[in-house]
Amino acid sequence: MREVTVTFEPEGKKVKVPISSTIFYAIKEAGLNIRSECGGKGICGKCRVIIKDSEAVNRVTDTEKRHLSRSEINLGYRLACQTTILKDIVVMIPEESRIDVRKIVATGLERRVKVDPSVKKLHLKLPRPTLEDNRPDFERLAEAISKKTKKALLEIDYQVLKELPSILRAANWDVTVTLDGAKIIAVEPGDSSMNMFGFAVDIGTSKIVGHLVNLTNGKTIAIESIENPQIIHGEDIMTRITFAMASNKNLSLLKKLVVDGINRILSKACESAGINSNNVYKLVVVGNTAMHHFFLEIQPKYLALSPYTPAIKRPVTVLNRKIGINANKGSTTTVLPIIAGFVGADAVADVLATEIHKSEEISLLIDIGTNTEIFLGNKNDMICCSCASGPAFEGGHIKHGMKAVTGAIEKIRISPNFEVKYETIGKVKPKGLCGSAVLDAVAEMLKNRIIDKHGVFKQNIKTKRLRKEKKEKRFVIAWGKETATGKEIVITQRDINEIQLAKAAIYTGCSILMKRKGIKTAEIDKVYIAGAFGSYLNLENAKIIGLIPNIPAEKIRLVGNTAVVGAKMALLSKKKMKEAEEISKRIRYLELANDPDFGQEFARALLFPELKGLQKF
Amino acid sequence: MREVTVTFEPEGKKVKVPISSTIFYAIKEAGLNIRSECGGKGICGKCRVIIKDSEAVNRVTDTEKRHLSRSEINLGYRLACQTTILKDIVVMIPEESRIDVRKIVATGLERRVKVDPSVKKLHLKLPRPTLEDNRPDFERLAEAISKKTKKALLEIDYQVLKELPSILRAANWDVTVTLDGAKIIAVEPGDSSMNMFGFAVDIGTSKIVGHLVNLTNGKTIAIESIENPQIIHGEDIMTRITFAMASNKNLSLLKKLVVDGINRILSKACESAGINSNNVYKLVVVGNTAMHHFFLEIQPKYLALSPYTPAIKRPVTVLNRKIGINANKGSTTTVLPIIAGFVGADAVADVLATEIHKSEEISLLIDIGTNTEIFLGNKNDMICCSCASGPAFEGGHIKHGMKAVTGAIEKIRISPNFEVKYETIGKVKPKGLCGSAVLDAVAEMLKNRIIDKHGVFKQNIKTKRLRKEKKEKRFVIAWGKETATGKEIVITQRDINEIQLAKAAIYTGCSILMKRKGIKTAEIDKVYIAGAFGSYLNLENAKIIGLIPNIPAEKIRLVGNTAVVGAKMALLSKKKMKEAEEISKRIRYLELANDPDFGQEFARALLFPELKGLQKF
Repeated sequence: MREVTVTFEPEGKKVKVPISSTIFYAIKEAGLNIRSECGGKGICGKCRVIIKDSEAVNRVTDTEKRHLSRSEINLGYRLACQTTILKDIVVMIPEESRIDVRKIVATGLERRVKVDPSVKKLHLKLPRPTLEDNRPDFERLAEAISKKTKKALLEIDYQVLKELPSILRAANWDVTVTLDGAKIIAVEPGDSSMNMFGFAVDIGTSKIVGHLVNLTNGKTIAIESIENPQIIHGEDIMTRITFAMASNKNLSLLKKLVVDGINRILSKACESAGINSNNVYKLVVVGNTAMHHFFLEIQPKYLALSPYTPAIKRPVTVLNRKIGINANKGSTTTVLPIIAGFVGADAVADVLATEIHKSEEISLLIDIGTNTEIFLGNKNDMICCSCASGPAFEGGHIKHGMKAVTGAIEKIRISPNFEVKYETIGKVKPKGLCGSAVLDAVAEMLKNRIIDKHGVFKQNIKTKRLRKEKKEKRFVIAWGKETATGKEIVITQRDINEIQLAKAAIYTGCSILMKRKGIKTAEIDKVYIAGAFGSYLNLENAKIIGLIPNIPAEKIRLVGNTAVVGAKMALLSKKKMKEAEEISKRIRYLELANDPDFGQEFARALLFPELKGLQKF
Repeated sequence: MREVTVTFEPEGKKVKVPISSTIFYAIKEAGLNIRSECGGKGICGKCRVIIKDSEAVNRVTDTEKRHLSRSEINLGYRLACQTTILKDIVVMIPEESRIDVRKIVATGLERRVKVDPSVKKLHLKLPRPTLEDNRPDFERLAEAISKKTKKALLEIDYQVLKELPSILRAANWDVTVTLDGAKIIAVEPGDSSMNMFGFAVDIGTSKIVGHLVNLTNGKTIAIESIENPQIIHGEDIMTRITFAMASNKNLSLLKKLVVDGINRILSKACESAGINSNNVYKLVVVGNTAMHHFFLEIQPKYLALSPYTPAIKRPVTVLNRKIGINANKGSTTTVLPIIAGFVGADAVADVLATEIHKSEEISLLIDIGTNTEIFLGNKNDMICCSCASGPAFEGGHIKHGMKAVTGAIEKIRISPNFEVKYETIGKVKPKGLCGSAVLDAVAEMLKNRIIDKHGVFKQNIKTKRLRKEKKEKRFVIAWGKETATGKEIVITQRDINEIQLAKAAIYTGCSILMKRKGIKTAEIDKVYIAGAFGSYLNLENAKIIGLIPNIPAEKIRLVGNTAVVGAKMALLSKKKMKEAEEISKRIRYLELANDPDFGQEFARALLFPELKGLQKF
């Protein structure tokens, strides 16, 4: 019987199944899990997946049409148990269908902000029109607002204007008006002035995180996250950009997928907080430059080609009803500004959240991801760069690497007699290694001199954990009998090289920025390490492999998802929104590829630091 | 065989035909004409009509689907020869399907304006991005524009932003940018700076007039007009408002019909001028308050109910692609401001065009229509009012009244021996009387003492033209043998009363304004009579019946369609656009219904003035 290959994202796991198998069957065969209450009979509608190519499966069945909306079907949603596979295919199991939950870093260092959002509500009792006072509805409303706010000139959303006469009369002239800046974006009956919410979103390449906040007091009332559903069209940014370059239809699909993702977490957040999404009047979104372009449906082709030019730097505000976000219909989304082609709105938000741009102290900010953004400087001057650190720290390109989900080894210690201790997410039998574990493994092998400063396995190590297979040396972290799959989990020579490339990229970024600013390691007052990976990092091990400069631990802070925090600050405060613009304008971007020292620095950085003195910059 | 009644608009002509007759047949039966090249075989597609109720006819045939677009079918368009009538129905024969052409007054008094529209074009050659200068596309463009215009801060239309990266590169960085104020609304390859056009539109209750202008030099390059297709849902404003009140779907249909009408004249104008509608970057629209609300799809219900409150007074700007106008996709339409519930943007445009608001002289401006707007004052102070003058001056509510189309009698003289001379539009046999002829007839009958100052036929008149039929006296204007239908054309007692009501309404408006401002007839320096009816008016006769004050002819100007001229001035000049706002804010509106003198004044005004001294105010 002919077989087809099914690739599951975000794991990247592949499995071969007989043609015409259901996706549900393939999931089980791949050793993955999916929610299901009916066991695959099409009754519960829980086993939702996203498929990449509708040509590779059967047509959407009537059963599925009962569980999926037309727009979901257009985005590629199917029920796993109803979908039979006809060709090789890529399938994504979205967050909502998962049993194993990924550790998504959804929060970060929070700074206090004075709550003063662009959105305001005013409760007004208007005089009823008479023949003596028959001012038009808009002017009656605008004059009442101006009287309260002492500000003239108001705009009104066109949809709100169209309904204004009916709303005012149905409400008996007792209304609550929502303003965004000088624009009337909503008019509601009665006093709803305490129901005013906003949503701050970080669109990551692999995950989307949203914070629902009360705009009257600044409190975060719900946090939700989801895998970025765009993953079905490529786990990494370049694959997605290539997909978007093929056609505007593809670009539009990527945009709709991310909007769909935002809508899902927004609706979950509203539900868990017990509020109505019509009372969400503002979104602030951040993301790297590619996510920024996808979200705004701007062709990202020129981001990917030299000289890597983005379409727009400054903040962009779009009407939610126009782009399909299910919030209040007069509300907008503001996408924070970017700095350069590879330093996006998420990095601007990192700066905003850490406030390094306002400090006298010299700060180094590193947001580690597939692309790592680095900032160095203080309030007088700051420069930044971006380095292609690759997916190794997220478990990518690593033989037994995996994302930080249940079953991933997240911490490793190797003793001088080469014995290995590890901890697994969810305390279950291990399935693979997540980024922090790979970093631990490399650091521990260095400490125990299993590898040398070139990252090469030494010759004279006496342990059966180290052996050669298919001409490649490998070190066993977990024996087959210990693991969930019954197979060994190892670190290979190539895995070590991947870590070297990744840490060298980041190291080179730091060292070139320091050179350009003439700052020595000892002069750095604060180091902020942001990003999901940074939250689980073993700092000592990071220094041992030379990922971060050798700076005393008390100067270093792991700050988590500062991108969403920065977005939230801009959502809560007009002043912070303005600061984001200043950050975007003032911070100088250094194109590493242009730097004459780049090649040499990078070559040097590939080496692991000598253990005694640790890494020296 | 069962018969059905077909009513044709705008004539209001009714005919009975056997059920299942085609509309084409009914048109011939009614003595009307419609374009057709194939004689009713469904081949030429010229006999387009608009029907009011799709339930009253057969379903749209495949033949029609070849000639009509889906959106036309949704608006009620059908081919007369393919549509069979099942129930009583109202049918409109639109302008494009007519052979008889109506006299539409499409131009008016033109004042010179300094051409300085809100829309500007700039031809720019941008530096190509490099690794050293990889500013984002928008910032590269915005900085180049700011350098030329010396103005900072630019917005960009979101659709244009989405396409910006592709356009700039396809154009090899040599582009022409269109700005509307501080907003980039279009980016085109090469130098298209001389192709910049705008469209000024007056939406009348019965007709839509558009002027296509070259925004680089202010020249009018095409003028087009069309019957307002909304007529199918009511010839008068109140019927349409009632229709719109019934459902938002109806309101939406009225909006789509007027947008469709504008699109038709815009496309015809572009064709005749040999330009592309993508090079039309701005529309300015005026209309009375009801047309204003219909066009903006705002519920007009509260306009019609006391205290007659409009939704918004100040100018409204909407994106053309959002409301369905087929101009450049980044372009907008600005609807000029209104003054009050019954003094609309068309009246503001009248003032703008006549410049009475800037003159030292005391001016009286009367725009005669179904509603007549009157302004009195000078640059220091001006008041206005609106009077319900009714349709008599447009041939409505008159026994043999008709619009000013081919076959309408437009001028009448009666000699002392009661003989009648008349002129017909198109020099054909007469079919009826248009407004100016009815006015002439009444004035001539007054002069010849056929009627008294109460408008009553005198007893002792010796002519067979005056006789009684069905208890009502009537005066024969044309004998049956002279007319196109073979039937007499007469003026009845009731017709005279209609004219009395109409002229009394206008008279009362004038006299109350004069009283309120303490201005006597002799103090008025200028009288402007605007509107279609005003263009064909016999001034002496108008004074004889007391329609306008008794002011020397040299002080009076018939200014035609000043509404479209005012719209054009605002289109051509930012300064005039600002003036329109000031007019709307500064001119005081007087609610006649509220005036304590109204009843008495109106009763007095119903009388015709004594002939000797003529009307005295």
